[in-house]
Amino acid sequence: MSEVDLNAVREAHARIRERIHWTPVMTSARLDELAGAHLFFKCENFQETGSFKARGATNAVLSLTDAEASRGVATHSSGNHAAALSWAAGLRGVPAFVVMPSTASRIKIDAVERYGGRIVFCEPTHRAREEAADRVVRETGAVLIHPYNNPRIIAGQGTAALEFLGEHPDLDAIICPVGGGGLLAGTSIVAKGLRPGIRVLGAEPEGAADTKLSFESARRQQVDHPSSIADGLLAFVGDMTFPVIRRLVDSVAVVSDHDIAAAVRSFLEVMKIVVEPSGAVGYAAVAAKTAEVAGLRVGIILSGGNLDLERTPWLK
Amino acid sequence: MSEVDLNAVREAHARIRERIHWTPVMTSARLDELAGAHLFFKCENFQETGSFKARGATNAVLSLTDAEASRGVATHSSGNHAAALSWAAGLRGVPAFVVMPSTASRIKIDAVERYGGRIVFCEPTHRAREEAADRVVRETGAVLIHPYNNPRIIAGQGTAALEFLGEHPDLDAIICPVGGGGLLAGTSIVAKGLRPGIRVLGAEPEGAADTKLSFESARRQQVDHPSSIADGLLAFVGDMTFPVIRRLVDSVAVVSDHDIAAAVRSFLEVMKIVVEPSGAVGYAAVAAKTAEVAGLRVGIILSGGNLDLERTPWLK
Repeated sequence: MSEVDLNAVREAHARIRERIHWTPVMTSARLDELAGAHLFFKCENFQETGSFKARGATNAVLSLTDAEASRGVATHSSGNHAAALSWAAGLRGVPAFVVMPSTASRIKIDAVERYGGRIVFCEPTHRAREEAADRVVRETGAVLIHPYNNPRIIAGQGTAALEFLGEHPDLDAIICPVGGGGLLAGTSIVAKGLRPGIRVLGAEPEGAADTKLSFESARRQQVDHPSSIADGLLAFVGDMTFPVIRRLVDSVAVVSDHDIAAAVRSFLEVMKIVVEPSGAVGYAAVAAKTAEVAGLRVGIILSGGNLDLERTPWLK
Repeated sequence: MSEVDLNAVREAHARIRERIHWTPVMTSARLDELAGAHLFFKCENFQETGSFKARGATNAVLSLTDAEASRGVATHSSGNHAAALSWAAGLRGVPAFVVMPSTASRIKIDAVERYGGRIVFCEPTHRAREEAADRVVRETGAVLIHPYNNPRIIAGQGTAALEFLGEHPDLDAIICPVGGGGLLAGTSIVAKGLRPGIRVLGAEPEGAADTKLSFESARRQQVDHPSSIADGLLAFVGDMTFPVIRRLVDSVAVVSDHDIAAAVRSFLEVMKIVVEPSGAVGYAAVAAKTAEVAGLRVGIILSGGNLDLERTPWLK
């Protein structure tokens, strides 16, 4: 499998749809008023494991042959992808090995354990994680499932947009968060495939704006010491996702942590739903008007709801 | 209008249904597992103004004759009923006068102001509030709309159960919070009217367990200094609601503030929805097993979502 196209996303959806939630789309007259646009929120915070990552992980796990799957899957991501992969492996009855830094938060450890993932702790450096992951793969024969540089992951993440545009085919624009770029790549493939005139926007925190930098210079460029309360979006945009994003995405909006926190509060206070900071950047960009969508019908993917209540000093 | 019956609730629903939300019913495999029962959650936290109070208030306001409505409506409740009445009055284009103690929280004041209510501040005593309300009614000619001792309010609150049992006619039990008793009275009228064999349960905080005390002694009895984080449930069960509750409700469960806080956290962490403490007592009673519903199909009304993030030290 090489290039991901609309057909690959449709096949992914057929493969996973009985296992995942077809998440609801919510609206809010008050947020429309604040934003000056007509907003539709695709609630992936209600997805299995609390984020869209269940889509890609399920597609990747169910795509393996029996021989491949038999020894399990592995990852060295410790956030929502780790929980999702653990859960998806459980659906197939195979183990998931998750390499995590010894400094990982209790809530992330709990999530992986809840879904039956087997945690392999390592030193909290990038190098130690990769080495630990290599060792796990070598010793167990598990298949490493990268959180975004993987065509089946990208196709799986695109299924959220497939449901979204299936229900709301007349959106003028669609916006989603970008970290490693799996969701944005999948979303852009679906959106431009189904509706060539639609505007596709990515949104990322200003403390980790590598995609904006890369997009505008047409060259993948990393930023030093990425940092944000949107801790799911610190990854460097992938070498498999960036070419897709460059080709199909119209613009990348950047938002401050202050605006992200305000967006999380709006979801809690106005819409009565829990959206984690990484999941709220799309709306944050619209509300702060760094994404230019005034007057449009805008689809916003709320990508996750795993808010760590113990680490939200900015919430009050 | 004297006694509220199923027909009055049906008429109320016909009157208000275009103005309010037909709220969704959610489920959670994980909460089912924790509770040992099959749970269905009626999400009145997603209702207009953030609580079921919009139902009764809208029914009461729309039931007034033009002459009655012309001078507006009034209340001396300062919580969700005040916000709901302000909003409902706005639908009809008439003023709502809300008597509030000068010590009311910013979030309650904001909610009433957002919906266009006119606040009349008074000293923070029960007597001062009643006197201020009498004065407002005398001076403006507004109609006082009591938060629960009012047949149109009771009929309006019953519409939540009408939608709920319309969609899920095979529930074995239904449980909702009880403060003044408007929601529980309306719910019991609908539930026993549509499905005589169903079990109807009320749930209240142990720090304000006047309904349990009254129910078990078959006589309305107040408790001294009611207190709970479920601040919407401190009212004394009404003389109009209690006879209905005594006749139609099967039992009243009591829960600790500790269990209520745990329930609020479960909604945030597992279901990714915001439920205020008063709205969470039904599930809290089921999870803490003070409501005996093991193995049953249980309908739980999540009555509101107006969580004050600045007053939740117990959330972490």
